[in-house]
Amino acid sequence: MSKLRIGIIGVGGIAQGRHIPAFQSLKDDCVITAVSDVNLERAKEVAENFQITHVFEQYQDMFSEVDAVCICTPNKFHAEITIAAFAAGVHVMCEKPMALSAAECEEMLAAAKKANKTLKIAYHYRFMKNAQAAKKLMGQVGTPLVTRVQALRRRKVPGWGVFTNKSLQGGGSLIDYGCHLLDLAIWLMGNPKHITVSGSTYQALSTKPEGTNEWGAFDRKTFDVDDHVTAYIKFENGASLLLETSWAANILEDKELVSISGVDGGISVFPLELYTEKDGMQLNSSAAWLAGEEDPGLAQAKNFVDTCLGRTELVVKPEEALQVSQIIDDIYRSGEEFK
Amino acid sequence: MSKLRIGIIGVGGIAQGRHIPAFQSLKDDCVITAVSDVNLERAKEVAENFQITHVFEQYQDMFSEVDAVCICTPNKFHAEITIAAFAAGVHVMCEKPMALSAAECEEMLAAAKKANKTLKIAYHYRFMKNAQAAKKLMGQVGTPLVTRVQALRRRKVPGWGVFTNKSLQGGGSLIDYGCHLLDLAIWLMGNPKHITVSGSTYQALSTKPEGTNEWGAFDRKTFDVDDHVTAYIKFENGASLLLETSWAANILEDKELVSISGVDGGISVFPLELYTEKDGMQLNSSAAWLAGEEDPGLAQAKNFVDTCLGRTELVVKPEEALQVSQIIDDIYRSGEEFK
Amino acid sequence: MSKLRIGIIGVGGIAQGRHIPAFQSLKDDCVITAVSDVNLERAKEVAENFQITHVFEQYQDMFSEVDAVCICTPNKFHAEITIAAFAAGVHVMCEKPMALSAAECEEMLAAAKKANKTLKIAYHYRFMKNAQAAKKLMGQVGTPLVTRVQALRRRKVPGWGVFTNKSLQGGGSLIDYGCHLLDLAIWLMGNPKHITVSGSTYQALSTKPEGTNEWGAFDRKTFDVDDHVTAYIKFENGASLLLETSWAANILEDKELVSISGVDGGISVFPLELYTEKDGMQLNSSAAWLAGEEDPGLAQAKNFVDTCLGRTELVVKPEEALQVSQIIDDIYRSGEEFK
Amino acid sequence: MSKLRIGIIGVGGIAQGRHIPAFQSLKDDCVITAVSDVNLERAKEVAENFQITHVFEQYQDMFSEVDAVCICTPNKFHAEITIAAFAAGVHVMCEKPMALSAAECEEMLAAAKKANKTLKIAYHYRFMKNAQAAKKLMGQVGTPLVTRVQALRRRKVPGWGVFTNKSLQGGGSLIDYGCHLLDLAIWLMGNPKHITVSGSTYQALSTKPEGTNEWGAFDRKTFDVDDHVTAYIKFENGASLLLETSWAANILEDKELVSISGVDGGISVFPLELYTEKDGMQLNSSAAWLAGEEDPGLAQAKNFVDTCLGRTELVVKPEEALQVSQIIDDIYRSGEEFK
Amino acid sequence: MSKLRIGIIGVGGIAQGRHIPAFQSLKDDCVITAVSDVNLERAKEVAENFQITHVFEQYQDMFSEVDAVCICTPNKFHAEITIAAFAAGVHVMCEKPMALSAAECEEMLAAAKKANKTLKIAYHYRFMKNAQAAKKLMGQVGTPLVTRVQALRRRKVPGWGVFTNKSLQGGGSLIDYGCHLLDLAIWLMGNPKHITVSGSTYQALSTKPEGTNEWGAFDRKTFDVDDHVTAYIKFENGASLLLETSWAANILEDKELVSISGVDGGISVFPLELYTEKDGMQLNSSAAWLAGEEDPGLAQAKNFVDTCLGRTELVVKPEEALQVSQIIDDIYRSGEEFK
Amino acid sequence: MSKLRIGIIGVGGIAQGRHIPAFQSLKDDCVITAVSDVNLERAKEVAENFQITHVFEQYQDMFSEVDAVCICTPNKFHAEITIAAFAAGVHVMCEKPMALSAAECEEMLAAAKKANKTLKIAYHYRFMKNAQAAKKLMGQVGTPLVTRVQALRRRKVPGWGVFTNKSLQGGGSLIDYGCHLLDLAIWLMGNPKHITVSGSTYQALSTKPEGTNEWGAFDRKTFDVDDHVTAYIKFENGASLLLETSWAANILEDKELVSISGVDGGISVFPLELYTEKDGMQLNSSAAWLAGEEDPGLAQAKNFVDTCLGRTELVVKPEEALQVSQIIDDIYRSGEEFK
Repeated sequence: MSKLRIGIIGVGGIAQGRHIPAFQSLKDDCVITAVSDVNLERAKEVAENFQITHVFEQYQDMFSEVDAVCICTPNKFHAEITIAAFAAGVHVMCEKPMALSAAECEEMLAAAKKANKTLKIAYHYRFMKNAQAAKKLMGQVGTPLVTRVQALRRRKVPGWGVFTNKSLQGGGSLIDYGCHLLDLAIWLMGNPKHITVSGSTYQALSTKPEGTNEWGAFDRKTFDVDDHVTAYIKFENGASLLLETSWAANILEDKELVSISGVDGGISVFPLELYTEKDGMQLNSSAAWLAGEEDPGLAQAKNFVDTCLGRTELVVKPEEALQVSQIIDDIYRSGEEFK
Repeated sequence: MSKLRIGIIGVGGIAQGRHIPAFQSLKDDCVITAVSDVNLERAKEVAENFQITHVFEQYQDMFSEVDAVCICTPNKFHAEITIAAFAAGVHVMCEKPMALSAAECEEMLAAAKKANKTLKIAYHYRFMKNAQAAKKLMGQVGTPLVTRVQALRRRKVPGWGVFTNKSLQGGGSLIDYGCHLLDLAIWLMGNPKHITVSGSTYQALSTKPEGTNEWGAFDRKTFDVDDHVTAYIKFENGASLLLETSWAANILEDKELVSISGVDGGISVFPLELYTEKDGMQLNSSAAWLAGEEDPGLAQAKNFVDTCLGRTELVVKPEEALQVSQIIDDIYRSGEEFK
Repeated sequence: MSKLRIGIIGVGGIAQGRHIPAFQSLKDDCVITAVSDVNLERAKEVAENFQITHVFEQYQDMFSEVDAVCICTPNKFHAEITIAAFAAGVHVMCEKPMALSAAECEEMLAAAKKANKTLKIAYHYRFMKNAQAAKKLMGQVGTPLVTRVQALRRRKVPGWGVFTNKSLQGGGSLIDYGCHLLDLAIWLMGNPKHITVSGSTYQALSTKPEGTNEWGAFDRKTFDVDDHVTAYIKFENGASLLLETSWAANILEDKELVSISGVDGGISVFPLELYTEKDGMQLNSSAAWLAGEEDPGLAQAKNFVDTCLGRTELVVKPEEALQVSQIIDDIYRSGEEFK
Repeated sequence: MSKLRIGIIGVGGIAQGRHIPAFQSLKDDCVITAVSDVNLERAKEVAENFQITHVFEQYQDMFSEVDAVCICTPNKFHAEITIAAFAAGVHVMCEKPMALSAAECEEMLAAAKKANKTLKIAYHYRFMKNAQAAKKLMGQVGTPLVTRVQALRRRKVPGWGVFTNKSLQGGGSLIDYGCHLLDLAIWLMGNPKHITVSGSTYQALSTKPEGTNEWGAFDRKTFDVDDHVTAYIKFENGASLLLETSWAANILEDKELVSISGVDGGISVFPLELYTEKDGMQLNSSAAWLAGEEDPGLAQAKNFVDTCLGRTELVVKPEEALQVSQIIDDIYRSGEEFK
Repeated sequence: MSKLRIGIIGVGGIAQGRHIPAFQSLKDDCVITAVSDVNLERAKEVAENFQITHVFEQYQDMFSEVDAVCICTPNKFHAEITIAAFAAGVHVMCEKPMALSAAECEEMLAAAKKANKTLKIAYHYRFMKNAQAAKKLMGQVGTPLVTRVQALRRRKVPGWGVFTNKSLQGGGSLIDYGCHLLDLAIWLMGNPKHITVSGSTYQALSTKPEGTNEWGAFDRKTFDVDDHVTAYIKFENGASLLLETSWAANILEDKELVSISGVDGGISVFPLELYTEKDGMQLNSSAAWLAGEEDPGLAQAKNFVDTCLGRTELVVKPEEALQVSQIIDDIYRSGEEFK
Repeated sequence: MSKLRIGIIGVGGIAQGRHIPAFQSLKDDCVITAVSDVNLERAKEVAENFQITHVFEQYQDMFSEVDAVCICTPNKFHAEITIAAFAAGVHVMCEKPMALSAAECEEMLAAAKKANKTLKIAYHYRFMKNAQAAKKLMGQVGTPLVTRVQALRRRKVPGWGVFTNKSLQGGGSLIDYGCHLLDLAIWLMGNPKHITVSGSTYQALSTKPEGTNEWGAFDRKTFDVDDHVTAYIKFENGASLLLETSWAANILEDKELVSISGVDGGISVFPLELYTEKDGMQLNSSAAWLAGEEDPGLAQAKNFVDTCLGRTELVVKPEEALQVSQIIDDIYRSGEEFK
């Protein structure tokens, strides 16, 4: 079988730091044949560093050289490029969030179905060994009742890139960071249907002139995205989810938390812990060692390539990524209500 | 000045373990002159043990012997007795929650105002040294954005008393236990007006036949109250509050959490920690020692007696306790929606 | 049903500290009607303190007043008294070790069978909550391969009683202390048949004139028992057991260890930990809470009384206690070989 | 004085990772002049990487170019090559174990004596700083009574090389790994004569089809060596030694333990701790800092070179390595008994 | 031999809490026959509680009934009473400090010599097990170079007694509290002669109106003693000592430190640690267990009684207590210099 | 503005490891144009490695090529070179200590004033983030009372360079190492005037033949500097400072301590902790994150360059460095007194 030819669209940090190395390490199954970037100079430099043959300024010019693309642009362009790729008969792996809005996501999904091509969204937290093991252990948790999700950083607004620009990204800490943990949590719960979403969004931390920030400087005057968000989600099966995410919270320390309490047990993912009770015993279990790939970015790339090659199925189904975007839409809408 | 004469209505565990010893230790300012209980034998025994003069079966018979009463009955009777006491011109300290419903609370409040007597609800968590210190430090937190409240026990449904009986208590883990931490959190926030409340309530843990329970046995068949509850509250000032309470959660360990992240800093009450940032420094502060009374039950009794004697003001204002009951009402109502 | 009448033979520390309080707390099912001791004065004093009716100097005089006896004498007298008790138709609970030798144990067992009465040996470690839970979890360990047993104290020879007297006790640290952990380990393994036993015994620590001792003074010149012992036991099913016990070892700290590594998992009893591996996960589990009676002495007494009353079966079967004594015999014999 | 010319026989992992770098760092005293390997290609590659002049396929061809050889082949070839080297008048440093059997070891020893050349076995654990310091402290332990040896790994069968091949290696976890700790322990004890050895060997962990393994994959069907071993050794001076070694044990965590309890004190090597008692004090001592060479492989190479050059004596005497092999023989023989 | 008759002069906290129970527990060797106090009522009450025969208002009246006295008055009266006691032929145990000044101490010492009676000062820290063990280990420290002494409390001025009254006590934190650790340190050093003393004394912490205090309230206006003191002492043998003591220091936490670094090793007393270096090893040793009496007050009483009865010698020689008072005098004098 | 031209005088470890990289990283503001060293070969090698244009043997030859020099020679040459540089109109950054004696320092200061050029002494500890933050927090400490300074290493005499040579360095542990912490402490105190200094110096640790040393070997026979020093300093404002420094102390572990207790609070610099008390609360605060440059050597270089360029002021004023040298002089003088 010939190797899957892959093109990279947008060659910024995430492309260079995660996706290009991942695909190149899967050298028996795929090859990166092309890169494109609106900044052609940067594209050329990256192509040279990674020894990639074709370089384009316009992503459309790439489609003839590839079987699949990996979209690493600002969120605003996810939908447009995805739809164009499917029109060209090319598989798509797209960075998270799926798009700026659930409406866009639905168009992407329709395009994928019409083209009968693979559409993978890069929620790579699911490929962490802890996440994979947690999924296996959910049977011991039983029916989920309460899920807690925290994706919290203390005073660490990204001081680079376009992260604080709402028109390009669609939002801030929630759409860029919290989305990972939210996706992971709902997947562990079995993607039950959500029925109500309530949320609050804040910008007061990063617009405060004199605040500290650990991750470099940014323009506090043009900052127009959320830096702290809370939400509450109720699901059809009765489960509820308490969500908090922030880039800049005034808290003790950074924290990533996904924990679920069910009828039979509880689980927490970072670190992996399982809480059970039966036969007169309450036991706590933790992971001493987990099999699997250490690098979730690599495991994710392999899942995409293997799916395109017809060997397996996607771990992150696009319908699941759509649900995350629906909830994010609802949270932003709810957060706007009382402003 | 003569001492405040106090009567105790209902002589169960909370009366014997907290209120009677507290009032008796304030012997310069008050004296317990009477007890009553529907179980007259128990009332007599308690009166003998604590050397209290008058014993009654009907609480109404007590009013002539006292200036104030302390109501320690099941929640169902709080409103009725309070209103009767005010009608008799007697001050009232009533155990939490204020009553079964916000509507009842409002009647109690109206009666208090009409009688121009003191109405104190026994939210004694506020009198803990950590809570008092946290209140002093709120200025360094600035405008509150996000509040987290957890009142969580792992498999510890009370195996005694009437706690699992909805008609007598009005609910379970939320109305009996979570209410304390909720009250404390809202007080620290400055009792802003709440505008939306969403919640979920569960009974699946305690009705499961074979479950473990650390605090004795109870009848799983008649159990009809909530044992796990989540809620989300949004306030007029934009702040949001994430609440979770349980008697029986499948979690790592019991946890009492009130933490608030504001514009300028963050605070956590148990243990007391303050997180600030300014002048290029992020500092964490903790309490090495706090002045004040160790026993919150005693501090609370003193505040009630001193208020009745005109020396000070209530720390727990009845309007604040009413707000807690309004929110509890709303959570139970929201929790019923999808069942 | 009338209560089981119990007599206590030998009223030293173990009788006063463990067995008498245990039986007296089971007041619905049994009553201590008699005590005896070769020191009649001491017997009278104990009877008075615990309000026991009959007092005897000769244990034989007690049999008519009791349905069961609890033998708390030096080890030398276990066999003789047990056999006499069965001859008198009385149930027997006898302190560990079962007797001075396996040969004596077999006579006791024969007498019990002939009398058709209960013979329980007081290996109370089995009634600890950790031990009971470990027994339930052995299925996850699979076939046992290697068992480690340590009953180790650092410089703590008992400075009271007859513990250092070989003719009365039959040995020292092994027969008095190590026997508990050895019994527990073999029981968890399922009491497989032992096929070879090799051991070494030492007296050099306590006969050294200037040594330290944390538990009082004893006569180093007359000390004639083992104070440090090692052994190795192979079982019919291929399992092997590494044993070490001491009263006076030069080690970091006291340690009680029973751990078993099997084909599927491993377990350690103090504290309770389970090590498993499957589905690509190696998990460690520990006990957060265990149901059951905290006091193993009480649980043991209840098991004896309930067995005598025909309600249940013995947890510690006399054949199992015999096996422990057989192994102890073999260790002492092996330890003598090279001296 | 001219430099010692050294040849390396077998250029696998241990040669490349330990011995070649060690000898090359001693550049004032020795020079590696030749390498040989049955895989000539590999030998050439290594020679090139390490800039070594001569390369051979047959080890015999090397002898004319060297004063000493370092044997890094599978265990099966240790004896044959050693004897040939001595016949050629060449010093020998041989990887552990000394050979497949004690009988072979004795032939090697005889050949060394006849040739009057140095024979060093690479038990490099003795050159660890903790081991050297422990040896100095043994005077405070006094006469050894009980020695405990554990060389335990949890689910870590080597997934490379020939380690699971009995005909090439003579055994598994004991002969390859446990031998190090056993050698170290007996040396600390002063190499007393052993008088009885009893042991058990297991293969059930690695032949189980679905087991986890942290160190890569191996063929579970052809696996024919021990992966878990216990043994018990009694010495002429009365001391006893409890041994456990495994590659795949179901235990909490990997553990290397050599601890000795003697008449006057106790010692543990990893980390170094000394337990003493005198003058009414029980003291625990630990190492804050130890002088000496950090890399035991380098210290070992230096000891070999210096001995060949007549400057010092061997730390690991071949008679001591023979004793280790005798005990290993006895354990394997004992382990076979009941299979 | 008849028992030593002891009288207690001053029956405050230290008498009731330490000395009376200690002497009464030595019932085979001594008996408390009399108490006196300027507050006769208090003396009578204590005599009744402790069943002591004679009660006096004037201490002089006691001498005929006793062989020895224990002086527990404010410091101001130590010298006068001691001298009177010796004049009456009575042994003396006197609370620390020895007296208000070194000059008074010398008069006491002269009186003791003239009377040929025992004079013991109650520096009971020396009788702590750690202190006794440290003294035994000083040989491993070698010649002392640097000694550090800290007797530090955070905001804990005694809110009772006469501790803040300079005319009665002669000073504050140094003379009352720091003296213990200073005495202990100099004794461990071997009481070398001091040659220069420099010091600083402070009162700013306790005279500050709004300060916190953990040990009750005191009158900040009349407070006229030192609450924080530093000093530096040089000895004839070249050793130097850095001293700090406080009742109210703004520090992390209370700390008692006596540590000595010598030519060969170092030692710290609380907890007991020994630091040595030789043979290429730096070892740290700590106490696992120490023989001896747990209660230093009892060990001290026994040393006094045994000395009076001619069985042993004083552990705290009066010349050593004099040295402590000389240094305290010098510190106070130096502290006054720059005020 | 043109870049500041910098010359490096003395190219040993401190030049290569700290100053050259620091200045070269400030490439927009300065350029190293020259190096000199009495060892011309070494100077050439360094110039080549760091691509520096001019190389000289005599420092005087450098002045025409530079605007500023950085003096990295043995202490003996600090004054002479500094004065020559000012005479040539060149700014000076000089390694600590400022010079061998306070007298020399004063000459340097006079020369600087006369030349109207910058004189910076390299007390880089002040540029650590903890130190900068501590300076900001001193207001919460209030008037300083007691300062503790420890610069202690356990058996770590530098086994390289000229550190143990008194004629070149002027002393040992105090002048080379302790000076940093002393400078930092006095600066935090606000550089109050010192009024008395008492000290002791030792050489017994490093002249002992068999001692251990963690940092290489040195000649114990020619060792003629202090390796352990204590001192006590009293200031005009009443504050006192307890100082201890050592390279070779027999202590538990290395320790760098600067802590100050004032009237209102206390502070400790490593790690940064603040202790306060007010409003009935004693709080401890620690740094979660501090803004600023991680590398104090770089921050220091920037401060020097910016000062030379007229953009800012020195953090380390030469008058402050002079005070440190005055105190060091006094300590050495006091230490000599009793030898």
